[in-house]
Amino acid sequence: MHEKLRQHIEKIVPLTDDEFAFISTHFTTKKFKKHQFMIQEGDTVRYSYFVISGLLKLVHTDKGGKPHIVSFAMEDWWESDYYAFFTQTEATLSLECLEDTEVLCCTLEDYNKLCNGLQKMQRFFLEKANFGFLGSQRRIISWLTSNSKERYEQLIKQYPSLMQRVPKSLIASYLGVSRETLSRLSA
Amino acid sequence: MHEKLRQHIEKIVPLTDDEFAFISTHFTTKKFKKHQFMIQEGDTVRYSYFVISGLLKLVHTDKGGKPHIVSFAMEDWWESDYYAFFTQTEATLSLECLEDTEVLCCTLEDYNKLCNGLQKMQRFFLEKANFGFLGSQRRIISWLTSNSKERYEQLIKQYPSLMQRVPKSLIASYLGVSRETLSRLSA
Repeated sequence: MHEKLRQHIEKIVPLTDDEFAFISTHFTTKKFKKHQFMIQEGDTVRYSYFVISGLLKLVHTDKGGKPHIVSFAMEDWWESDYYAFFTQTEATLSLECLEDTEVLCCTLEDYNKLCNGLQKMQRFFLEKANFGFLGSQRRIISWLTSNSKERYEQLIKQYPSLMQRVPKSLIASYLGVSRETLSRLSA
Repeated sequence: MHEKLRQHIEKIVPLTDDEFAFISTHFTTKKFKKHQFMIQEGDTVRYSYFVISGLLKLVHTDKGGKPHIVSFAMEDWWESDYYAFFTQTEATLSLECLEDTEVLCCTLEDYNKLCNGLQKMQRFFLEKANFGFLGSQRRIISWLTSNSKERYEQLIKQYPSLMQRVPKSLIASYLGVSRETLSRLSA
């Protein structure tokens, strides 16, 4: 199962067997059931998660108790409440399984050990962080420049496999539109 | 002037004089006048910029020719069309000076040399990238959960000094509202 992580890292930096053996020691495996929470608001966030299989939603609940989808994560994606993870503060987001899910877990201590112990891994995390930033910037530009129909079409084009697995009501929440609006868009 | 860069980096990683001397060789200085473009759409993006003094706007122009503010940058901020910079593709954003501006410039080649030559600098860029991602995520959550009045108030609270220097019309563009709406909000 760690083999998936190796393939994922090697898309960015090549690894020797020894290097990957070292990396593997910094991850543990966990399994969660559909509807189970991996993080709940107020939790201490212990892990950054690499998704081996399954599907997750990262959710912000507003003051009125309405949930908003911040992001989805599926195979080969990293997910957590990263603000809480990096600053070691309480979670303000929740992370819930939309399918049975298997993840590799890395603590902040192990993240730092990996960065300090193997420059290649720091490089890998730097690339992921840079492209994570660019993905968010793209979403902001999409908000600024596109109407909800265009944003829905961009999403389908960008993540066709994700769209098949995520219920329509959650796609509406991710796009910030009502379910009725989305039904009209996707008709 | 490089001293500002040193102070900025040392907020994250301490440096010896020799290390900073090495870092300095990877930057050049440039000055731009108010209204001057540092990047125009279609340009090859040669540099990541660290702002010594001045104020910039990063702009996406939509198909209808309407400009949208993606972000602002002022003293101690880094800015570029980072997608174009990292992928060495043509700029899809423009970067324009709102004030006379002085920057330190780093090419992608020098960025990579810094990362490979000094693990501390890779660590520094990793921290900046992680918190850049979190800043964008915060803005997305703000879009999903807040109305334009709340977003305006969050912006003033988060960047009071920026708000004093940026014309109202540009703040409206950043928030994705009309100038008339903003006038109502800020009355």
